[in-house]
Amino acid sequence: MSTDVVALLRAELGERVDTTPAALEAVRADKSGHAAEGRPLAVVHAASVSDVQATLRIASATRTPVVTRGAGTGLAGGANTGSGEISLSVRGMDRILEVRPDDLLAVVEPGILNADLNAMLEPHGVWWAPDPASRAISTVGGNIATGAGGLLCAKYGVVRDAVLGVDLVLADGRLLHLGHRSVKGVTGLDLTSLVIGSEGTLGVVVGATLKLRRHVEGERVTLTALFDGVRAAAVASAAVTASGVQPAIMELMDATSLAAVHRLLSLPTLPAGAAQLTIQTDGPAASDEARVIADVLTSAGGRVAVAADAAEGEALLAVRRAMHPAMETLGTTLIEDVSVPRSALPDMFDEIARIERQFGLVIPAVAHAGDGNLHPNFVFEGSDVPPVVWDAAEEVFRAALALGGTLTGEHGIGVLKRRWLADELGEDQWQLQRDIARVFDPLGILNPGKVFAPRPQHPSA
Amino acid sequence: MSTDVVALLRAELGERVDTTPAALEAVRADKSGHAAEGRPLAVVHAASVSDVQATLRIASATRTPVVTRGAGTGLAGGANTGSGEISLSVRGMDRILEVRPDDLLAVVEPGILNADLNAMLEPHGVWWAPDPASRAISTVGGNIATGAGGLLCAKYGVVRDAVLGVDLVLADGRLLHLGHRSVKGVTGLDLTSLVIGSEGTLGVVVGATLKLRRHVEGERVTLTALFDGVRAAAVASAAVTASGVQPAIMELMDATSLAAVHRLLSLPTLPAGAAQLTIQTDGPAASDEARVIADVLTSAGGRVAVAADAAEGEALLAVRRAMHPAMETLGTTLIEDVSVPRSALPDMFDEIARIERQFGLVIPAVAHAGDGNLHPNFVFEGSDVPPVVWDAAEEVFRAALALGGTLTGEHGIGVLKRRWLADELGEDQWQLQRDIARVFDPLGILNPGKVFAPRPQHPSA
Repeated sequence: MSTDVVALLRAELGERVDTTPAALEAVRADKSGHAAEGRPLAVVHAASVSDVQATLRIASATRTPVVTRGAGTGLAGGANTGSGEISLSVRGMDRILEVRPDDLLAVVEPGILNADLNAMLEPHGVWWAPDPASRAISTVGGNIATGAGGLLCAKYGVVRDAVLGVDLVLADGRLLHLGHRSVKGVTGLDLTSLVIGSEGTLGVVVGATLKLRRHVEGERVTLTALFDGVRAAAVASAAVTASGVQPAIMELMDATSLAAVHRLLSLPTLPAGAAQLTIQTDGPAASDEARVIADVLTSAGGRVAVAADAAEGEALLAVRRAMHPAMETLGTTLIEDVSVPRSALPDMFDEIARIERQFGLVIPAVAHAGDGNLHPNFVFEGSDVPPVVWDAAEEVFRAALALGGTLTGEHGIGVLKRRWLADELGEDQWQLQRDIARVFDPLGILNPGKVFAPRPQHPSA
Repeated sequence: MSTDVVALLRAELGERVDTTPAALEAVRADKSGHAAEGRPLAVVHAASVSDVQATLRIASATRTPVVTRGAGTGLAGGANTGSGEISLSVRGMDRILEVRPDDLLAVVEPGILNADLNAMLEPHGVWWAPDPASRAISTVGGNIATGAGGLLCAKYGVVRDAVLGVDLVLADGRLLHLGHRSVKGVTGLDLTSLVIGSEGTLGVVVGATLKLRRHVEGERVTLTALFDGVRAAAVASAAVTASGVQPAIMELMDATSLAAVHRLLSLPTLPAGAAQLTIQTDGPAASDEARVIADVLTSAGGRVAVAADAAEGEALLAVRRAMHPAMETLGTTLIEDVSVPRSALPDMFDEIARIERQFGLVIPAVAHAGDGNLHPNFVFEGSDVPPVVWDAAEEVFRAALALGGTLTGEHGIGVLKRRWLADELGEDQWQLQRDIARVFDPLGILNPGKVFAPRPQHPSA
């Protein structure tokens, strides 16, 4: 059966069908630290919409699971491909088909990297706002599949706010054009939004009409504020939000994160417990806004430093950007992604501290404080997430839900959080969502075992 | 059977079940000018979520169609209720349950009027941005059901951008909580977006968590520019968009519209063919932005007038707001609602002129020029839309689609445009959307005959 599938794929797609051990091994994992069991049947390197359609027709005819893959930078295992499955890579479909600065839209293929797209939009005076930390290495298609966010979201929106339409190949190979090119449009059901964040369970995104923004005029001003503890920093971030000034970036680092980065970058040692906010304003009123924010932060007990120029501002932001390398110096990391209403941010940090004590773990955490999205990092030895980490992570999820939050702000459910999906949705909605996915994919061949999979004891099971 | 349903409703809901002839007559129509055939069985005036659930349980048990209704201000016939159907009014569920300025959210019942909500948010320093022209008389639930827009959308977004979650009662009476209270959230499929604009076909919205904005600081500056013709005005609006300055409002009135309003308001007669842009800037840089825009408009051949103060600005906008009363002086009006990419606005006005000549009709048109959404008005005598008007409207739809646009920017499909829905979606997507609706409503009792109905020869058939 398996060889039949590969033979069918080869007959139609020739050398785009890759069964080299290195290729099969590479697609078992994404950046979540989790890998699928076994090796897939093949990797199909699609170069066109018709390649994708051909792959799905064969997959449907043979009832073979298909896992779509961009650059493999996901953090929830959504693109991990294992035994008996086809890995359908759209990374090679990376063209920009159209840029219309007058209509503030671009039509692109899914495999283009976010940063490459923005570099090519630059001369047109426009940009695509979603800016996941992975933007240099993640694809627009992957950003759409996960509903990605980033640092600039509180001011400039997430992927859901920046896509007008998608072209979607269904499980049976049919091509649909969802959405529209106009800014407004309410014709029928909003299937574009349904596809955003659907993690490969509804179809394969083979094209996207993106909503662009014009470059923001004016300077950027960056400042940091040090606080005695993470709660004080979180309360201060809420005060900034309450001031009515909208920063472009407002990042919070707790003491463990900040200390680890300072060690990595050989920066001065900070007082124990010190936490930091890093804030950037932009636009014509950037300086005025930075002054208002500096006053708010000082009143909230922060020790404020304002960057003298853009280079110094970048150096301040580099501290935040070094978070992931710094975590890697501590051990293996499971990066979590809960999101809570902004006012609940201090309480959520309290909950993380409680869970650290309860489980005897250290959980360095950073937050996109402008929108209440936290990334607690569970650090451990070895390559497999130990049960105690999953138990602690479960406590973090439950705490976030109890505070009116959600399991995942921008990374997705994938395999890592499927166990808790019904806890947030409720059984009725969980079943409804699964039934909707079945309308797109009646045979259940699209990314099976992800998002809606039956609930295992532990996510790795 | 019919009397059984009413008896069942009365047994459970008592005096909230209304079968007076006046009530039954009133719910046959919305503001589209189109009415359902026959009178419904009853109007249920729901006062609570459990009233809605009880109604839907009885409707499911008896397979009786249910049409949800807010204030009845729709323009596509979506809430029209006819023979054999239950009209489920949620207009009485009009409470604000929670306002959180710190989290920029409010939780409301669906029956509250948009303007009433904003009046009650005012003291908190926040507002809900969607501003359909009907905002004084339309409900938030109706705004969600249609995915409403308004004048401020190009800068401040549409309903889809301003809702975090909805509580939805399914056809069988179960209550689901969709979405979340956090700004970010990608847990599972985005059913909140799917419900927005679904026109009562997926369930009954009984609550909504709205995303608010802080009041915009600073002044507002209003200006108008007169042009020799509508194409020149449309080209000028594109030049404003291309300038990178984002007006809060940018409205375009063609010659017939403008002349009709000038007659109604006893304003000076204008040169034949004169069309007008009315633009408002807001925020800290409003004056600077208005100056830039005035220069762009002058360069584009416009005769610019800037309001001296807020009162004069309101007077200029009042001309645009008098459009509908002015149309009523000409006859009965079918208000259309196509949307095109902004760069296609001049071509779309050319198409409307061509269709006027082809069918011997006058089609006064206004546009939200900042986002490419046009409202061509078909004026006729009597209460029934004549076939020639539908033929001309069809030409307008086809022209909008050919220019990369959509059938409806903000009013919805309802009964009036169901005939053309598959033209835009394609047969495959049309069927997929219908199948998705069936997952929510397996018996097909939610607003049957709307949006996805079989395609009649003319919409009134």
